[in-house]
Amino acid sequence: MSTETRDTIFIGKKPLMAYVTSTLIQLANVPSVNIKARGLSIGRAVDVAQIVARKTENTGYSIGNIKIDSELLESEDGRKRNVSTIEIEVKKNTS
Amino acid sequence: MSTETRDTIFIGKKPLMAYVTSTLIQLANVPSVNIKARGLSIGRAVDVAQIVARKTENTGYSIGNIKIDSELLESEDGRKRNVSTIEIEVKKNTS
Repeated sequence: MSTETRDTIFIGKKPLMAYVTSTLIQLANVPSVNIKARGLSIGRAVDVAQIVARKTENTGYSIGNIKIDSELLESEDGRKRNVSTIEIEVKKNTS
Repeated sequence: MSTETRDTIFIGKKPLMAYVTSTLIQLANVPSVNIKARGLSIGRAVDVAQIVARKTENTGYSIGNIKIDSELLESEDGRKRNVSTIEIEVKKNTS
């Protein structure tokens, strides 16, 4: 029913394996999933991508493009801060 | 005197700006620097790369290749654990 060919998993405060499971479910439906995180969750996004890549390497998935960027966020005291972001693609191998 | 054309900055526990300064000094000498980190330092590596890229965008440097991987480390209790790693290239624009 879905017409989406890309999907995004945002990494937050849930246990790591919750995001691994979500990503694997999405990969069963779409050829490419983007794992996104910002700030302190960036390391966890890399962990999720690595675990997913290891679990799916025999079925032909691998890490694709990785982008880093920063976002200007306003904190509660009104000051603007730059927060780093990451976006990691896990995709079906085209071979 | 140096014949190196690439250089590497490993991100550890020093203040963030120490790594930014080291990277900027290296970029004055070589066309491309790799910023490496593992585990909990991964988010800080992205911060360093973003700060360096912002500080040098007018002089023609930008983020290049980004690689993520994992390393099998043995912890003190003898168990093996996978630790995620990241490597971010900051390079002179070729234009």
